[in-house]
This record gives sequence, C-alpha cells and structure tokens, in this order.
Amino acid sequence: MKKYCFGADIGGTTVKLGLFDIEGNVLDKWEIKTHTENEGAAILPDTAEAVMAKIKERNLNVEEIAGIGVGVPGPVSIDGIVPHTANLGWGYKEVTKELSERTGLPCKAGNDANVAALGEMWVGGAKGCKDVLLLTLGTGVGGGIIVDGKILTGAHGAGGEIGHIHVEDQMEEHCGCGNQGCLEQFASATGIARLARAALAECEDPSLLREEEVTAKAVFDALKAGDAVAERVAERFARYLGTGIAVMTAILDPEVIVIGGGVSKAGGILLDYIRKYYKTNAYKSSKETEFALAQLGNDAGIYGCAKLILDGVCEN
Amino acid sequence: MKKYCFGADIGGTTVKLGLFDIEGNVLDKWEIKTHTENEGAAILPDTAEAVMAKIKERNLNVEEIAGIGVGVPGPVSIDGIVPHTANLGWGYKEVTKELSERTGLPCKAGNDANVAALGEMWVGGAKGCKDVLLLTLGTGVGGGIIVDGKILTGAHGAGGEIGHIHVEDQMEEHCGCGNQGCLEQFASATGIARLARAALAECEDPSLLREEEVTAKAVFDALKAGDAVAERVAERFARYLGTGIAVMTAILDPEVIVIGGGVSKAGGILLDYIRKYYKTNAYKSSKETEFALAQLGNDAGIYGCAKLILDGVCEN
Repeated sequence: MKKYCFGADIGGTTVKLGLFDIEGNVLDKWEIKTHTENEGAAILPDTAEAVMAKIKERNLNVEEIAGIGVGVPGPVSIDGIVPHTANLGWGYKEVTKELSERTGLPCKAGNDANVAALGEMWVGGAKGCKDVLLLTLGTGVGGGIIVDGKILTGAHGAGGEIGHIHVEDQMEEHCGCGNQGCLEQFASATGIARLARAALAECEDPSLLREEEVTAKAVFDALKAGDAVAERVAERFARYLGTGIAVMTAILDPEVIVIGGGVSKAGGILLDYIRKYYKTNAYKSSKETEFALAQLGNDAGIYGCAKLILDGVCEN
Repeated sequence: MKKYCFGADIGGTTVKLGLFDIEGNVLDKWEIKTHTENEGAAILPDTAEAVMAKIKERNLNVEEIAGIGVGVPGPVSIDGIVPHTANLGWGYKEVTKELSERTGLPCKAGNDANVAALGEMWVGGAKGCKDVLLLTLGTGVGGGIIVDGKILTGAHGAGGEIGHIHVEDQMEEHCGCGNQGCLEQFASATGIARLARAALAECEDPSLLREEEVTAKAVFDALKAGDAVAERVAERFARYLGTGIAVMTAILDPEVIVIGGGVSKAGGILLDYIRKYYKTNAYKSSKETEFALAQLGNDAGIYGCAKLILDGVCEN
C-alpha cells in the first residue's frame, strides 16, 4: 500500500522538494542548491541524497513510497529523457532512469512549466478543470498545457513552448532560442522592460519610469499611478500577449487560462489589459474563456511533480 | 463479439458513409444527400435510415456492430453535443443521443477535421504517429489535432480551429468567423485567390493569371510554369501559412504535419514554399519536423469516424 510520494522541481538555482501523502497533502517542503558546474553532474545525485535523507529522517517505509516526480527546465520526453538543458549544464540525460537507479524508487519527469500547470489544475488557479493553458511570465515566457487532464508533452518533449510563437516580423534582436520576433521578447519581464525603454526613448514626455530602474514591476506600478508612458507600454505588451493567447486558444480551446510568474504579481490590472486584445482576436467559441491568476507561486512545480506520480498510482 | 462499425461523415452537401470490419478494412462505402432545409431536421433520420438499410441489405447481426462514428462540420463536445453548425442549419443538437436512439447503436461524434486527422493517423499520411497536426486547405482552413493518439477536442469542442489564428493586423475584410486577419483569409483556396487578385492589381506585369479565372489551382499551375506574379503570391501565402504552422508546432510539438484539402493537390511545390518560412520561425525542437501530404482525400473522415468507435472497443 503506497502512502507517500516526492516532488522535485529542478531549477537553475535551487531544487525545490516536497513530501506528499497520497491524498495530496504536503507534509514537508525544503530546497537544496542546484550545482550546475561540471555539466550539472551532481544535480541528480544531490536530489537522490536529499530524498533518501528525508526518508531516513522521517523513518518512512520505502515500500510505502509511490515514487518521485521530477520537473526539469527544458524539453523532456515521455520516457524521462532530456536532450539538452541550457540552465542546468546537462547534455543528453536519462533523468528518470538515473534517479530511479539512485533511489530504488519509480520516477516520472515533466517539463517544469508543464508540471506547474498540472499543479495549478490540481489545487491552484485551475482547480477542477481538465483543459488548461498556463502562461508563466517571468524572465522568459513559459507555458504548460493540460489536455483532458494530462500534460501535452509533444513528440520531442517541447509541447507548450509558447514563449516562442512568432508574433512580430519587425524585430531585429534575436531571442534566446535563436529566432526573431518571439512572444517572449515582448511579454516577459525582460521584454516589458525593453518595450518601456523603447517608449521612453521615442518621446520626451515626463514619466515615473524616468526616475528609477526600468523593470516590469516599475511599469505596472507606474501604470497604477496613471503614468501615460507606462500606459502605452502596457497597451503594446497586451497587444502581443492578448493576441498571442487568442492564437493559443483557437488551437487548444482550454477551459481556463492561468497567468503566473513574477509579472502576474501586477494582479487584476494585468488581466484587464490582456483581455481587451484577447477578446478582439479570439475565436468565437473561446471569447468568453475565463482568465485566472496562478495561486501556487513557486510551489506549483512540486505539486505538479507529486501529481505526476499520483496519477500513475490511480491508473494502476 | 463485435465485428463491424460504421463511419458517417456529415458534410454540407453529402453524408459519406462507410462500413468497416473491426480490423479497419472498409467493406462498403457510399453517400447520401445532406438535406439542410428545415434546420437540417432530416439529416440524422436520413443517416440512421442509411445505416439500418445497409444492415438489412447485408443481413448483418446488430449484436455484432460496435457502433457509429460521426463527423460533424463544427464544434462538437466530448458528449456529442453540437452548439450550432452553420453549414447544416442545426442549432443545438445532441447528435450521438439522437442517432443512438434512432438506431439502437452506440454513437460517438467528433469535429470533421479532427476525425479526418484521426483517419490520416490510422491509415494515411500520419500512419504510425501519435502526435499529429493536420491542416485542410480548402474553401476554408480546417485543422485536426491528435495528442498522444487522441483527438484534442477542447473545452467547447473547438480544439484545432487553426484557420482562425490571427496572423495579420492590417486586414480590413472580415473573416467568416467575424474577426479580421485570420489565417483562413490568406491560406484557404479563397484566400490564395484573393492574394492573387491583389497582386495582379498592384502591378502591370504580364502573367498567366491574367488569362483565366483566378483560383488557387491557377496560381499553383502558373507557379509551376515559372510565372513571376504567381511566385510572389506563393511567397506571401507561404509566409502566412509557414509562420502560422511554426506557431502551432511551438505550442503542440507534433511528430508530423499533414497538409490536406483541395489546395494540397498542388503537391510537393506547396510544401517547399511552406517549409522555407516554417523553418525560419519554428522553435528549435520542431524545425526538422516532417511535412506530409494527406493520403485519404475525402475518405479521411469515414476512416476517422470508424476509428472513434474502434478505439472505444479497444478501451473496453
């Protein structure tokens, strides 16, 4: 009889870990440093050690542990194979095989944004839904897609790479992915700051944004204070993002659109701006589809990792 | 023991029907007229009658029939409910419930483009794949999406409405869906003819297209003959479609992209043009994703309808 499972959300700075009971209650939550040096060779051994130490500390019976769900910042195939992961230093890596050999526990892996979507569906902003589109607006723009309750993994583990849909032909700078005109170049925190710097350079209007470091947070703070330049930046950001989301929903027809990541801290005003352009360009069946803010913050990943394992337990 | 199933692909002009054995061989194939008058009230009774007549004609044992799969030209929910279907005259319609009551057989329904994708995956251009993106370029642009072997239905039955992704801000004409700048306005047969008329009006260059009715077929025939105006039209069409497909694959990461519909009869040259813009804008994981031409033509629907039923038989 299985009673517990672990979630391990591997990020570029820390590995977030969680111990859950089979009903989905979090019993423990902690993190360890991600050692990316030496091609990230220590990351999986460190993660295995952290799990084994927790098992020992809590005196758990290994027979009662359903497994470890793992989130990885990059493409992951359905077999738990990562072809490459820029942020961790990994080349080809058989994540679930290695972690399973090191712990003796069953493992499943998913892309970090996809498992975050699974977490939000389970206990967060998309609770009760089966078709979910999650966008995380942070340093980059990540995406997680749930179709009929399951992660859309894709043929190369790259399903939901929505930050890289092409939205602008007139973009000279290159995106981190190598292309030009990706959504991420306009709708990430970095992209919003870029739009703001361009708007400030294009005019001489007074603006709160001239008085401090230009960040996405500064833009939304200025917007809330009625700043005219910030308003133009928000309009432009929202045109790219709202139209981009309309494209996604014409393809996916989700039940709910969840917005997470650091930029989502701007709150309701963010959704108001996005909705305007969304409604103009969304297909008729999806024009009224609900927007929600993500609720689990940085914990979405470990919840989703746990759910990866618990879904497997329910299937068997 | 089930031995047979029916596929019924309902179109605006005819209902295409097929009788299949459980291994997927087509035993019989025929069609009846679609009577759209009187809000399409006769369509399901006619379809039921056609199926029952075939059962009688072939002296089949009703106990051995697994069911009827139905394709509908519009959104269909997972419960077989159609909210509205412009081409058939239907308002709200419980398709599977009504057809099941009229025949005494289990029924499942899917959107016509989605079941066509299922058919192409089963025995056509995407055979052996589990993640498929099908585009049908005809009067409109339809789409069918298969994720891990199953149709992506969507929360409102509108998954895969890829003809209505927004691709152009500078479009004054409205699409049939009510929006402006939809992919369908540029990549359908109608859209290609519109681009060609615009290209002819913009210049006075001699062109084969000035000598006959401007159709999508005429454009590709002229292109094959080296016509310079046709080449500009093909470039513009391919920029919209290739970039649009790149957007779709960044979201879906399919194993194969299948192009069907009347426009696909242009053949390999069509794929060459699309691939150029596709590769420029596709996300790195999907840049090498294979393009294929659809193989089943107008039969893709009845095959997919049959597969809807046979998948259910295998599940049970």
